[in-house]
Order: sequence, then structure tokens, then C-alpha cells
Amino acid sequence: MSVSNGSPFVWHRRVEFCETDAAGIVHFSSFFLYMEQAEHALFRELGTSIFPSDFHHVRELDPPFTWPRVRCECEYLAPVRFEDMLEIRVSVERLGTKSITYSHDIRCSDHRVAQGRIIAVCSSHVHGKLVGCPIPAHMRESLSRYSAPSKDPSA
Amino acid sequence: MSVSNGSPFVWHRRVEFCETDAAGIVHFSSFFLYMEQAEHALFRELGTSIFPSDFHHVRELDPPFTWPRVRCECEYLAPVRFEDMLEIRVSVERLGTKSITYSHDIRCSDHRVAQGRIIAVCSSHVHGKLVGCPIPAHMRESLSRYSAPSKDPSA
Amino acid sequence: MSVSNGSPFVWHRRVEFCETDAAGIVHFSSFFLYMEQAEHALFRELGTSIFPSDFHHVRELDPPFTWPRVRCECEYLAPVRFEDMLEIRVSVERLGTKSITYSHDIRCSDHRVAQGRIIAVCSSHVHGKLVGCPIPAHMRESLSRYSAPSKDPSA
Amino acid sequence: MSVSNGSPFVWHRRVEFCETDAAGIVHFSSFFLYMEQAEHALFRELGTSIFPSDFHHVRELDPPFTWPRVRCECEYLAPVRFEDMLEIRVSVERLGTKSITYSHDIRCSDHRVAQGRIIAVCSSHVHGKLVGCPIPAHMRESLSRYSAPSKDPSA
Repeated sequence: MSVSNGSPFVWHRRVEFCETDAAGIVHFSSFFLYMEQAEHALFRELGTSIFPSDFHHVRELDPPFTWPRVRCECEYLAPVRFEDMLEIRVSVERLGTKSITYSHDIRCSDHRVAQGRIIAVCSSHVHGKLVGCPIPAHMRESLSRYSAPSKDPSA
Repeated sequence: MSVSNGSPFVWHRRVEFCETDAAGIVHFSSFFLYMEQAEHALFRELGTSIFPSDFHHVRELDPPFTWPRVRCECEYLAPVRFEDMLEIRVSVERLGTKSITYSHDIRCSDHRVAQGRIIAVCSSHVHGKLVGCPIPAHMRESLSRYSAPSKDPSA
Repeated sequence: MSVSNGSPFVWHRRVEFCETDAAGIVHFSSFFLYMEQAEHALFRELGTSIFPSDFHHVRELDPPFTWPRVRCECEYLAPVRFEDMLEIRVSVERLGTKSITYSHDIRCSDHRVAQGRIIAVCSSHVHGKLVGCPIPAHMRESLSRYSAPSKDPSA
Repeated sequence: MSVSNGSPFVWHRRVEFCETDAAGIVHFSSFFLYMEQAEHALFRELGTSIFPSDFHHVRELDPPFTWPRVRCECEYLAPVRFEDMLEIRVSVERLGTKSITYSHDIRCSDHRVAQGRIIAVCSSHVHGKLVGCPIPAHMRESLSRYSAPSKDPSA
């Protein structure tokens, strides 16, 4: 499998007041919301939803995928404040058989303010338990569009 | 049915940092979390849970109750800050056939800082839709223990 | 002062996953975030910010205004779910000397899903205390653009 | 400086409903709130506060410390649900000159459900900018009480 030279998915998001804290800056946990929301926007861009609205109704019959996180991290480089406009660049750093590693580059006014990473596992409900399952071929192809250039997505 | 002379359910909760905002005080929406968490603690005090952990698994067979809110309100009397210890007093202001009206008196250092109200409707999933249903007799009896003295719970 | 026949400020907002709860729908407290965020977007539309980023630095010299809430309420008409696109219509229901009452009409797919109201008081820090102060004339004029037609903003 | 054989600070926290999401489990970002709240409880245990309530008033005269995060991470081992009682064990993994690395072991019913880490830097406001500064001696001594046994706190 050849290395994809994808470019990141770019999403913009304004900092809301409820995401700040008494120190006057955005609460560190809010960055994980920004990263997740950018991932969900990426899924919409691919014409699908990371969590279909009929999830609980169909899950015993035609189990939809869900993507529980197994690991996440964030490095904070500069504080951001209310109404700052953030640019979140999501890349697929690694596309495993069942897991996906997203890398998030968060910028504000052309400065990098945070760098994050989320690892999620493609899963499905089987007899009431979450079980990892291979990422479907068509989804792998879609997601590889955003593969980071320097990484081997087949690793 | 005689009027119950119940006393409020009292619950204590410390303000957490993530509940503050850049103005240096608790975000106004956080008070609804305090009210709801006190209500859930009240249900635990009654030996039950407002949302059993097997909710989505059993809901087609033995539909559990759920309590969607139809109305809520809060009046803010004084700001509260990080690490303030709040006392939330929950009273059942009205116990209708299907609905319950909670009244919340929120205090900090013996001063009233907020006064809230939440109306929830006893509901169940029927064919994928939420439908209001009568509050079961045993639950009415339990909840009436916290009826506000000056109100007629049979109204 | 003549009655303004303003039209509401309209703002769109997609429901994010972190705003839902285990019942599968948007948590009731999230509607207050939508209302507040629409209000802040309205201030940006007026060319200002409800909370300038230098707030804590300048507040002793040139005290900026802040708008603590004194009351808020919400009536819930229908549940909303992840990725629903909401339309929030903000009207100025009443413009008092020091206070403003916003009315929020929240819609999803042309149905009204919630109806809210927030009352905020124009305030400033004086010797470390929040004190209500008259809404400046230029701001009154700007805000009256969104006055609800059937209300008298001079009341 | 000898290696401290501290034991972790243990804190208990019940999962609240607003911390769950439509997948029926606790949202991954909520674990960072649990970690931070345990850290703040640790500071209270030491007789101090991580964010004194007069922070913004005194900061130009007698600048208090603040602890912005420079990095955090979490590994998720098992889902947790509404009303689960969590045990958060906080250890000081590393105590640098200006920075502190906390390690968080999060358990539920005697099973480890998550493992986290937060790195914060002792900072102060100097001319409106956040600047790192050495952790005061008395605080170093207090914090070393919770040093992880296998780590050298002087590193």
C-alpha cells in the first residue's frame, strides 16, 4: 500500500464563554472538545456521522459502529481566550486494522496553541458488550484522504 | 390525601474550577447541574436511580422511567466562586399525576445565592417515542416525603 | 421613544456530541449555552464583545461592562439530538434602564424545540464589587434593533 | 535529597449524569475534570487553594501562583457510567524546579478504568504575562508527600 499524501482536514471554531475558567483563559479540558468536534465535522465531510441518531434503536439488529477513545493527549503551547477563532487541522496519523490515530494541530492567529492526539477504536455492540472490529474498507479509503504525509498508513 | 409536612432534601456540593468562567464566578448554567445532581442524590436517598445503568438494554422489554425536563428556571441572587461550598435544598413543590415540580433553594455560607425550579415528567419509551405516564404509587409516596409544607401535593 | 419593530437576531448552531447525555438527547442545561452563545454572537454583530479579552487588566482603571444574569428560564418542547442544526432567534423582549430581557426561540427543522428567556444586568466593578449601571445610550440604540415588535422597549 | 516513599492522595467522586454522552457512557473529556478536581482536593488537603478567590484583585500587587497545564494525557481501559463511584489516586510522579507531573490512577469497583497524567507549571503574572517560577520550598515539601515511590523527586 502506497503512502498517501493527504492534507489535513481544516475546521474553524470560535472559543465560547462557557469554555473559559476563572483564570481568564480556556479550560484545558475544552481542547479535547475542539479536537472531537473537528473529528465529527470530518465524518460529516465524508458524508457520514460518527454517531447516527438511531444508534440505540438499531444497535441490536444492525449494529452501527461507535468509536470509543482508548487514548488521548494534548500539549499546550499558548493560552487562548474567549472569542479567539481557532483553526483545528486534523490528520490521520495512523490507520490500523481496528484503530485510528488522529493528530490535531490547533492554531490561533497563525500561531500554534496546542498539539493533540486521539486514538479511537472502531467498535460495535455484540450482546451488550463493546467489541473492536475492523474498520470497513470504504471508510479506510475515505479516512486515508487525511493521512499525514510522513506516516505510513499501512503500519 | 392530607398535606405532607415534609422537609427539604439537603445536599452539599463544592464548586469546581471547571464550573467557573472568565468573569471569575460560577457560570450561570452550572446552577442547573447543581439542581439536577441534588435531584439525583435525592433519588439515591430513596433507594433508586433516576437513570438505571441498563437503561438502553431493557428499554424495549421492561421500559424504565425517564424524567425529561419540560421547564426549568433559576433566579441568581449572589455570585459564587471556586471552592465555595453550596447547600442545595430540594423540595417537591408539586406532585402532579405525571409531573413533578422541584424547588431548589441554593445557599452558600448561610446566604441564599440562587432559587431554582425544575419540572420533569415521568415518561417511558413506547415504540421508540417518549410518552408521559403516571408516577407509580410507591414513588409518589417516597417523593411526597419532600413536599414543601405550604403546597398541596394532591393538586 | 417610539416602539421599535425589530426582527430577531438569528444564529445557527449544530448540536455537539459532548452536549448530549446518556438518555440519548441533548442535556437540558445545554440549551442555556445555546442561548448565551447566540447573545454573544449578537454582540459581535453589533461590533462589540460582551467580555473584552483585557477585562481583568483594565477593570480598575476603565471598568468595562459585564452582564451577570439575574434570571433565566427555558421551556422544552421537543428533544434534540447530536448533529441537529438549531436555529436560535434572539429578541430583546424588554430594555430597562439597567437590565435587558432576551427571549430565545429555538427551532430545529422548522419546529420549535425550546423557548427561553434570560435577564442580564449591565454592571461594572466598583472597588471590587459588581454594581448595576445604566446601559449606555449607544448600546441601547444598538440593542433596540432586536426589540420584539409587541413590546415597548421604553417600559 | 532522599527519595520520598509517599503514598498517593486518594479522592472519591461519583459520576454525574451531565458527564455522560449519547453513547451511554462517560464522555472521554470528563476524565480530565476528575483528575483536576482530585488535584484541587489535594491542594485543599495541604491547607491551601490552587486558585485563591481574590486571584484577580491581588495579582498585580502580591502575585499568586497559578498552575497552567502544559501537557495532559489519558488512557482509557474500561467505560464508566452514571453513578459509578470512582476512586482517583493522585501521585506526584516528578517534581521539577518549576513543573509538577501528576499521575492519576482511576478505579471503579477495584478495577482500573483509566490512567492519566497532567504536567503543570508553577506560574505568576508579571506585567500581564504568565511567567514560570520556581515552586516555593514549603510547597515542594508538601507536594513531595505524594511522590510516587519509584521516582526521584529531585530529578
